[in-house]
This record gives sequence, C-alpha cells and structure tokens, in this order.
Amino acid sequence: MTTPQLVQQIKAKKSFLCIGLDVDLTKIPTHLLELEDPVFEFNKCIIDATHDLCVAYKPNTAFYEAYGLKGWQSLEKTIKYINEKHPDIFTIADAKRGDIGNTSSMYAKAFLRDLNFDSVTVAPYMGKDSVEPFLAFENKHTIMLALTSNEGAFDFQTLNVGGQELYKQVLETSRTWKNSNNLMYVIGATKSEYFTEIRKIVPDSFLLVPGVGAQGGSLQEVCKYGMNKNVGLLINSSRGIIYASDKTNFAEKAREEALKMQQEMEIILKS
Amino acid sequence: MTTPQLVQQIKAKKSFLCIGLDVDLTKIPTHLLELEDPVFEFNKCIIDATHDLCVAYKPNTAFYEAYGLKGWQSLEKTIKYINEKHPDIFTIADAKRGDIGNTSSMYAKAFLRDLNFDSVTVAPYMGKDSVEPFLAFENKHTIMLALTSNEGAFDFQTLNVGGQELYKQVLETSRTWKNSNNLMYVIGATKSEYFTEIRKIVPDSFLLVPGVGAQGGSLQEVCKYGMNKNVGLLINSSRGIIYASDKTNFAEKAREEALKMQQEMEIILKS
Repeated sequence: MTTPQLVQQIKAKKSFLCIGLDVDLTKIPTHLLELEDPVFEFNKCIIDATHDLCVAYKPNTAFYEAYGLKGWQSLEKTIKYINEKHPDIFTIADAKRGDIGNTSSMYAKAFLRDLNFDSVTVAPYMGKDSVEPFLAFENKHTIMLALTSNEGAFDFQTLNVGGQELYKQVLETSRTWKNSNNLMYVIGATKSEYFTEIRKIVPDSFLLVPGVGAQGGSLQEVCKYGMNKNVGLLINSSRGIIYASDKTNFAEKAREEALKMQQEMEIILKS
Repeated sequence: MTTPQLVQQIKAKKSFLCIGLDVDLTKIPTHLLELEDPVFEFNKCIIDATHDLCVAYKPNTAFYEAYGLKGWQSLEKTIKYINEKHPDIFTIADAKRGDIGNTSSMYAKAFLRDLNFDSVTVAPYMGKDSVEPFLAFENKHTIMLALTSNEGAFDFQTLNVGGQELYKQVLETSRTWKNSNNLMYVIGATKSEYFTEIRKIVPDSFLLVPGVGAQGGSLQEVCKYGMNKNVGLLINSSRGIIYASDKTNFAEKAREEALKMQQEMEIILKS
C-alpha cells in the first residue's frame, strides 16, 4: 500500500485507528478454545466486527511465536484473511526485528514479501545496514522504534547524545538512509509533549502511536502536537479493544470500544 | 545450563567455538533439496560432524522464519535434536528480540521454555522492562547486543553519552537490572581493541563474539584482550564453517574448518 492510499483510507473512514491483534489464549473467551484454531477464530471475529472503524491491524509476532508452529499458522491465516477480505486495510507485522544486513534481508522477505504485510516494525540499535534491507521493498513501509511507550524508554532512548536525546538522533540519522521515504516511526503516546519537537525532525512521516488508553496517553494531546497535513498518525489500541469482554459477545463489545475511538477521531479530524 | 557447566564444557573440549546454524537453501548442497526437510537434514549433518569441536550452536531465527511454517518446524526439530543427542551443548536462539514487558515475556517463554534453548539474544533499545522478562528464567541466559560487528554499529552504539560510548552505558546500566547475573553480551570481533575497556565494565560476563574469520576479526587479538579467568568468550563462526563446501562432502569440510578453529583455541587455552 502506498502512503497516499493510506491517507485516502483515513479520510474515507474518518479514522486513524490501528487495532493490535495481540492474542493471548488466557484472555480470550473460553468457548473459542474448543475450536481448531482459537487464535485465528478470535482474530476473524474481531476483524469482521471492526474493519470499517480502523485503517490498520497490527499482530505482534510475540503472541504467535509463543504458540510455536500452531501460532505461526494462526499468523499466516490472519494476514491472509485480512489481505483477501479487506485489501484496503494497512497491515503491520509488529516484529521489532533488526540484524546484520544479509540476515535482515531474510526477515524483510519473510514479512513483506511472503506473508505480504504492508509494513514491519524494526529496532534501530544495529544501525543503517540492519534497516536498509527492509526499506528496499517498494510500496512497503518500515516502522522504526524511536521513542517507545514503556518505562524502559528512559534507559537509553532519552540519553543525551551531542546535545539532543538519542531518539532524536535516531530520527535524524535514519532520514539519510536509502529509501528513507519508506520509514515510519514508533512514538509512544505517554509523552505527548515531545511530539512538537519530533515533528520538527520528521514533519511528513507517519507515526505509529501505542500507549493511548490502557497505557495512559491522551488522544487529544497526541493529535494536537503530532498531527500533520496528511494526519500522519496511526493510533494503536490492543487490549482496550480486543479484550473489552471475555464473554460470547466479545466482538460486539470490541466494536463498541473501536467505535468510541473512531468517533473521537472523527471529531478531531473535523476540527 | 549453568555458567559453571558451560565453563566445564569449554575445558573438556578445549574449545569455545559456537557454530551459527544460519541455513540458506540457496547455499546448501543441492542433493539435500530433494529431502522432506532440507534445513533440518543439513543441520543434523553439521551437528553430527562438529559437536565434539564446539560448545554451542546458534540458529539465527531469521533464516527459519524466512521459510514460514516449514522453517519454524525445522527450527523446532533442530533444537530438539541438539537437546536430545547433545545435552551438553549450549544453545543460543539468535532472535534479537525486545518489546514491552508483557510481550517480551511471550518471547522469553517461546524460546527459553517451550523451545528450551539455553539462551536468547535480545536488543537493548527498549531498556530494562524489555529485557528483565528474559532474565527471570533460572539457569537460562540472555545475550544482549552491546557492540555489534556490522558497519551500522557506528551509527548509534558508539555515540558519546555523558563521556562514554552508548554501548558502554548499555553494559553498565544492564548490570543494575534484576537477575543481571544471567546476562551475556554480543561484542563484535572487528573491534578487538575495545575488549580491554569492556572487560573493565563486565569482567566476569560471557561475551558472544561474532565477526571472527569471514568478517575479518582476529581470534588471537580477541582472546588477548577479551578472555577472563573462566575463558568468558564464545567465538561464533557461521558461514566459514557450514558453507565450507557445497558438495556431498560438506559435513566433512565443515568439520575440517571447525577443527582448525578448535586447534587454534586449544593453543590459546594452553598458553
């Protein structure tokens, strides 16, 4: 998917919501556990109930690898289902990969070509040659960790390097890489005051923003400081939506939560 | 496996060699491609031919994920084969994972409990709560990226933070984390002059050292500056050993290359 296509979707759906498909068998409704592939069945119900309210789905690979072969199969079925039934949806493999060049190429092919995700998240620590193999895929996107939403973000990401925080240096340096126009960035919502400065460095890039809701970030604040002329934001919510209920009506309740966020987004987009 | 058990293995085998099982179907002998699971069959032959010369095997997960479900199955079979046939061997899932706490827990369970690797590599960018879930596993080890062997290492890892390079800060900070005695570190061999200073920060830790051989690092130099009283080094070689030949005698040739390294190590251990 191209960036203009993503922007078009946002405008059509009046939503910039991304739903995180982080499926934990201990948290899903127990009636699903009797089925052949509970993880996929859960995702299918969530997708069917919410696809008109969000523009992106983001399975985190950890939750699939945790179930071994069966989990990997659930991941394959989930991305295939989205791509076939809802090709307008932007898909994110939340994998946070990164390795030396030839090894990163293997990850890039796995997620962007074979599984056919629109994007994959990567970690910046190993630098340019660990990320460029992902950037080489046309009309695909590489979403690099910059400032994350967890407590540990303050261990290294905000250390001062030559007068500015490391995450800002990461943003700046990454703009010099080959095909850097395919980059998006993860910026945690728990620090909305930082968005003004981030936008000075990456005014046009899309930012994937976790941490709204469950982790305490405010949607209003993030939009106030982080939005650009193309919206430029994908706001992720996982647990708050997909685990809204653990009863048989879980999909309906997930839709209600997604709708609340979409409606809040519609108001912001109008203003 | 405990650290004393690893040290004992090193002394018994007179080797601190780790063999990287980075299996690329375009590089293995073509006669294997007719078999049901060429990746596993290749690994089995390499393991059978080298297990007495090395103390560790390190499959890089990228090379398995690249083949989807089938690749994940090859990885499962490989680790099961090592654990059953050679329980004395230290196993490393080279996965370079890292995510927010509850998500890192899923990765930790997948690699350290379910697949039953002795250790897993992790990336430090997301800080303490992204690594501690891995450290919680008793008699398991978490190998954190510090200074890698690729060109991109100089993008961020060597930036000056408060008077020292970022990778040194990473080493120092990680020592304050819970169960930090379960930490080992990735230190690239292409920069052997750095080992003296690294040993001032982490005198007792094991260091996993890629980049000897193919990537240009010198074994002698690394040992001179990096070895401690328990040896404290695992020297990794992947391509130089496993792709020594692409003919039917590939396992024999791999053994020859591994033997050269073991013999060089035996001399160093004696001196």
